[in-house]
Amino acid sequence: MHSPRPRPTELEARLERAKTDFARLCRAGLKIDMTRGKPSPAQLDLSNAMLTLPGNGDFYQADGGDTRNYFGSMQGLPEARALFARVMGASLERILIGNNSSLALMHDYIVYALLKGVPGGWAPWGAEGPITFLCPVPGYDRHFAICEEYGIQMVAVPLTGSGPDMDVVERLVLEPSVRGMWCVPKYSNPTGETYSDEVIQRIASMSTGAADFRVFWDNAYGVHHLTEHRSEIANLLHLSQQAGHPDRPLVFASTSKITFGGGGLGLLAASEANIAWFVARSSKRTIGPDKLNQLRHVRFLRDHNGIEGLMAQHRKLLAPKFKAVEAAFARRLQGTNFARWSKPLGGYFVSVDVHNGCAMRVVELAKQAGILLVPAGQTFPYRRDPNDSNLRIAPSFPEVEQVAAAAEGIAICIDYAVAERLSADGKI
Amino acid sequence: MHSPRPRPTELEARLERAKTDFARLCRAGLKIDMTRGKPSPAQLDLSNAMLTLPGNGDFYQADGGDTRNYFGSMQGLPEARALFARVMGASLERILIGNNSSLALMHDYIVYALLKGVPGGWAPWGAEGPITFLCPVPGYDRHFAICEEYGIQMVAVPLTGSGPDMDVVERLVLEPSVRGMWCVPKYSNPTGETYSDEVIQRIASMSTGAADFRVFWDNAYGVHHLTEHRSEIANLLHLSQQAGHPDRPLVFASTSKITFGGGGLGLLAASEANIAWFVARSSKRTIGPDKLNQLRHVRFLRDHNGIEGLMAQHRKLLAPKFKAVEAAFARRLQGTNFARWSKPLGGYFVSVDVHNGCAMRVVELAKQAGILLVPAGQTFPYRRDPNDSNLRIAPSFPEVEQVAAAAEGIAICIDYAVAERLSADGKI
Repeated sequence: MHSPRPRPTELEARLERAKTDFARLCRAGLKIDMTRGKPSPAQLDLSNAMLTLPGNGDFYQADGGDTRNYFGSMQGLPEARALFARVMGASLERILIGNNSSLALMHDYIVYALLKGVPGGWAPWGAEGPITFLCPVPGYDRHFAICEEYGIQMVAVPLTGSGPDMDVVERLVLEPSVRGMWCVPKYSNPTGETYSDEVIQRIASMSTGAADFRVFWDNAYGVHHLTEHRSEIANLLHLSQQAGHPDRPLVFASTSKITFGGGGLGLLAASEANIAWFVARSSKRTIGPDKLNQLRHVRFLRDHNGIEGLMAQHRKLLAPKFKAVEAAFARRLQGTNFARWSKPLGGYFVSVDVHNGCAMRVVELAKQAGILLVPAGQTFPYRRDPNDSNLRIAPSFPEVEQVAAAAEGIAICIDYAVAERLSADGKI
Repeated sequence: MHSPRPRPTELEARLERAKTDFARLCRAGLKIDMTRGKPSPAQLDLSNAMLTLPGNGDFYQADGGDTRNYFGSMQGLPEARALFARVMGASLERILIGNNSSLALMHDYIVYALLKGVPGGWAPWGAEGPITFLCPVPGYDRHFAICEEYGIQMVAVPLTGSGPDMDVVERLVLEPSVRGMWCVPKYSNPTGETYSDEVIQRIASMSTGAADFRVFWDNAYGVHHLTEHRSEIANLLHLSQQAGHPDRPLVFASTSKITFGGGGLGLLAASEANIAWFVARSSKRTIGPDKLNQLRHVRFLRDHNGIEGLMAQHRKLLAPKFKAVEAAFARRLQGTNFARWSKPLGGYFVSVDVHNGCAMRVVELAKQAGILLVPAGQTFPYRRDPNDSNLRIAPSFPEVEQVAAAAEGIAICIDYAVAERLSADGKI
């Protein structure tokens, strides 16, 4: 972002105060990691009952299958798929449950597409020249890392506050080399924004140059509300089918931030053709997913109300941390135009846009003060933020007092970095 | 195999008796599945204590890490790697533990190799023309299925009873397009044979046309003894390193037939370069493996003695089933030269070579009698047994009485099919 310039004397005073506060901050000897959207121990405790499940002697799935053994449905336990039907916005026939990582499902879909081609396509994605994915920015670094790993070109598309700029998207997808698009449609990582119905309708119905264009719809925060206002989004699977593009959407979710980050379930919902294709590919890779862990989730969560109830408890633990960030930023930066930050209604992140050219400096200062932030640029393809402006703050893991201290520290670092930059600019 | 021909009258009488016995067999109305090497419920019961592990409140790994959460080592829990160090023949630094499938680790190594290339290689395996894998036969169908899926050409190499025919292997690997070789070195699937020290030394030290040639060493039955005689094999990792080919071997194993088929652990041991490369690749795919399941295994198995003790219990359940197969085959087929079958000292299979051109007929007859066998040819690349001779019998899952009944039935079907074929041959 660009900031209107304060008067020189004001700026000088502001920089001096920031320097003093920063020196005090450094002396405080903080050591706080705000890099990753990890659940806190208190959040993980909410699911501790799973640690003794399914229980000795209690290992049969509903159809009588022995979850301890090989085989069964490659798609996962039917009752587990039914459990997540509302979360996924799909019937259990259109859902596949893998092991502990939805990222792995996204990765594998891409790898299979590169080597084998997808339903509706005429060749493996890797058989022709380079292909391209659209990347709404700022976005999730691990999405971009998969593209980079496999030489998939990334084109950044600006987010608007209610999803990607669809005028840009609709123009870019006419190019046949564009085969995919990353989306985190709800409480997006990191901006927190939720795609509007109009945006989702346009994604479902837009014309694409490639017949086998896919939307990687990473609904990672579908039930991860932070307030009483529970954002809902339009059902991309339904809309795409209505628009004649049933195979376009690949809907992903996981329980990593519902039950256990290290021992959750990754999920995929998609058209019949996509699921059949993915099952056929995966069946070359493995005899099947860990069914015991799916049974554990069924026994623990029971039904959609069980999921919602658990998420309400998560919210109680998370909301105060987001409030602490908001309070610290508002206290120091409100009205300055040094920074603009998100006030998310859900998800795991606060996104901060500081004055252009200052993000790397803020991360560096924070590090000096013992506050670890993700490297600036991480939220952009190839880790390059053209404006050096965006910061991603992850307040979930540390205790609330630590989050408050870290947020105040980050605000000081922003104050320092931007005042410093504006002073330098003024001297040129 | 080829059978010396009995005299016509003998043969006629034999065929008549077999037909009578087959009719009786069909009336018995058996329904027995002998297709897959699955543990029986009684075997799975041995690990039921795992179903309540790690236990509520007991979720920390040795270094204090919280196994419930994201992150930690991509290689897996250090204590889990230490637990399997003897099984893998490698120190924990050279071991990686994934999720519930060692096949998935083999698959992923190949997929990464196709798309990215491997340490010591100069291009992705998929970048040049078709590559080739050597396939000792009969072998494991799922190995061959991965090759078929990705267009990797397969060349069959005969097994000798102590491993592949190394004169053939040493000649074939001089071709630079040969990049890999499948091996099940101990209690091989399905022949039950164990590779001799000499064979393993030759695999370790042979000259290959490709600098990035890899041996996929699927040691699936490393501790799966069926008798007091506990076969041991030479350490391919050590021998390859000594021979100047440290990156050649990829050693795989799993606990699917130690603890739970559906909820075990897949393992890889390899050189430092291979492990670092695989970790780098996998870290694009997932934040890490399911650490809780690794902790469960550590708490349950404790140490190598724990593994050996558990395997002794498996042996008690499995050995009588293999004895039942041996007894039924000996009773009916000994001295006939209609069939030759393995008497494995370990593993999960009995391999039967019937008179050439009769295997498909045996499977068909067995099916009529309610005994399900894997399709003939399944143990060969492209599912084509050039002699139509090999059958794979999996006696682990059904109860011992069922196994005995099935084995007697299969012996009748072999008798019938071979006598029928020899009679027909005689008439031509």
